[in-house]
Amino acid sequence: MSNAQPAGLEGVIAGRSAISNVYGDEGRLIYRGYDIGDLARHCSFEEIVFLLWEGKLPNKRELEDIEEELRQNREVPKELLHYLSGLPHSARTMAWLRTGISALAMYDPDAGDSSLEASRRKAVRLVAQVSTLTAAVGRIRAGLFPVPPRPEGSEAYNFLYMLQGQEPDETAARAYDVALVLHADHEFNASTFTARVIVSTLADMYAGVTGAIGALGGPLHGGANEQVMEYLTMLQETKKDPAEWVREQLAAKIKIPGFGHRVYKTLDPRASFLHDMGRQMAEKSGKDEFFKISEVVQQTVLEEKGLNANVDFYSASVFADLGLPVILYSPSFACSRMAGWTAHVMEQLADNRIIRPRADWVGDDHLTFVPMDQRP
Amino acid sequence: MSNAQPAGLEGVIAGRSAISNVYGDEGRLIYRGYDIGDLARHCSFEEIVFLLWEGKLPNKRELEDIEEELRQNREVPKELLHYLSGLPHSARTMAWLRTGISALAMYDPDAGDSSLEASRRKAVRLVAQVSTLTAAVGRIRAGLFPVPPRPEGSEAYNFLYMLQGQEPDETAARAYDVALVLHADHEFNASTFTARVIVSTLADMYAGVTGAIGALGGPLHGGANEQVMEYLTMLQETKKDPAEWVREQLAAKIKIPGFGHRVYKTLDPRASFLHDMGRQMAEKSGKDEFFKISEVVQQTVLEEKGLNANVDFYSASVFADLGLPVILYSPSFACSRMAGWTAHVMEQLADNRIIRPRADWVGDDHLTFVPMDQRP
Repeated sequence: MSNAQPAGLEGVIAGRSAISNVYGDEGRLIYRGYDIGDLARHCSFEEIVFLLWEGKLPNKRELEDIEEELRQNREVPKELLHYLSGLPHSARTMAWLRTGISALAMYDPDAGDSSLEASRRKAVRLVAQVSTLTAAVGRIRAGLFPVPPRPEGSEAYNFLYMLQGQEPDETAARAYDVALVLHADHEFNASTFTARVIVSTLADMYAGVTGAIGALGGPLHGGANEQVMEYLTMLQETKKDPAEWVREQLAAKIKIPGFGHRVYKTLDPRASFLHDMGRQMAEKSGKDEFFKISEVVQQTVLEEKGLNANVDFYSASVFADLGLPVILYSPSFACSRMAGWTAHVMEQLADNRIIRPRADWVGDDHLTFVPMDQRP
Repeated sequence: MSNAQPAGLEGVIAGRSAISNVYGDEGRLIYRGYDIGDLARHCSFEEIVFLLWEGKLPNKRELEDIEEELRQNREVPKELLHYLSGLPHSARTMAWLRTGISALAMYDPDAGDSSLEASRRKAVRLVAQVSTLTAAVGRIRAGLFPVPPRPEGSEAYNFLYMLQGQEPDETAARAYDVALVLHADHEFNASTFTARVIVSTLADMYAGVTGAIGALGGPLHGGANEQVMEYLTMLQETKKDPAEWVREQLAAKIKIPGFGHRVYKTLDPRASFLHDMGRQMAEKSGKDEFFKISEVVQQTVLEEKGLNANVDFYSASVFADLGLPVILYSPSFACSRMAGWTAHVMEQLADNRIIRPRADWVGDDHLTFVPMDQRP
């Protein structure tokens, strides 16, 4: 069949976008034209949300407005939290979050309205409430009651407050804020592409981001930093030499999570930013065990396989230093990426065409029907 | 950027498949090599489920086994039904179903296991339980208590039993069965493609089909037959001349739902089958109002625009004749398509590569960061 494309649509241009762009060969990432390094150094997550949605950096007044909108929309329905609290603890946290986000549609008067105005209102609620749900899931899984959001402070501050049940210190809040900035968007990654395919049928924004959470939960996508933490923890607990472990894995042809990327052919700029952040946090706190193990693992993989660490590799140790439980790594990623998903949903709806590709048929074309009593 | 593809990936081959194929120019659809007309005439939905999953028509023993597996897996957790019962009735039924299916993952010990064996077990549960949830949503929305499934009878029979709270007559059960067969799979449609993108990250089957339900709910996809019923009902109630209405819509450049298809350039074979079914049902029951209006609408659109009716056009009047409320049209479509989605998830996992395309960047490449106090 004509027009066959590479497996996994690798390198295939599936649509136009002006939200974020990855320059794989240069190791550069931009949001709306601005370098990710500048944004991570100077901007809050709320500024980034505005930038991704509106296409420009907010002035002081615009930033205050969006901060206030987000603060006013943090609460989630009590009956939803009640239902989530009764679910089996064996379930994966991303299934929890996916179900919670899907359910939020039921309470939203704008659900089903795909106009730009309604989509913008829903986007605010989704960005605000995904953190509330994530913190609640973390509390429930720890056997604690969810802590209601406060209508004050930044998204990062409020999340850590809800999760820990006490005021976070400022360094931690800013570190989490930077992590939110770094993960907020990344072009047509699998979860964002999922959201765009879904809303290209003119399905609701909630449908799109629910699907996106599903995709992000996969081990080949957002699930990778949990796997990174698994082996970092193992290496820390067993005191095994990290370089030796890496060489053993590679000799056995076992893929090491946190390395390589479909698009980046050189260092992922988010990884190098998180690397520096991890170093600073380790130096400040004096707890540098994970960071030191990480550095040896990274160095060994680079020497042996020529593969660079990706964003998942260093986000693992940064999240650990922030005191996030491993089961919240992917949900926290979703809290950040919700900004990008909602931006992409609005961009898709502004110039929509249903995304409906074809398959290369590799089966039989003409089989003759066989009645039941003649089947082998 | 190189390798740019048409908008909506129209005509683009996004992967290989041997499950179903659409021959758009011939108006032909096959499942695993067999013509859809033969299958709709001779097979039950359970045979089709086996065919789509296993790649061959079941013999008597294999059919009995899968029927029994499905019957044994129909029940859904009571607390989930309890939660769904308390949701606002203003919510869309597809949001209800999406949330319910997403939640089922939490109770499934195989959720998170993407092996072929676990996927097959989950596929059975999903196909069996999506009907239970759909019937429950229909009951709840009608102000009634859900009726628990029986561990007997076909999927079609049991669905109508749970929905109506009484034994369905055999003609109705078989008509619904045929509708399930006709909607069970359709190559890389938007919802199926969604499921494949999601599980290509190695996310769980529940994540994939939850996303698929989201996509199916869009007006440009499964939502179309609800819109068809809206105008058929309007035409029936107002006694307006259907041909005149069609010409008015076309003159005002308003798209008429239920016509045209991305892939079929001639008649959709499912539409012609449903057309014949609708005629027979109308003749048998003597209630032919919707059918007659449908025929005039179809004929007029064909004459004026050269567009053929698609599957959504005739499924609307068939579902109406079966006594399904309009709010269950899309969920019923999901009950059928669940067979195809689960088959595609298993096919994707058997030869997986993450589906991660690129975007054509149409924004600014290099903007200089502007500090807050210098922003306009």
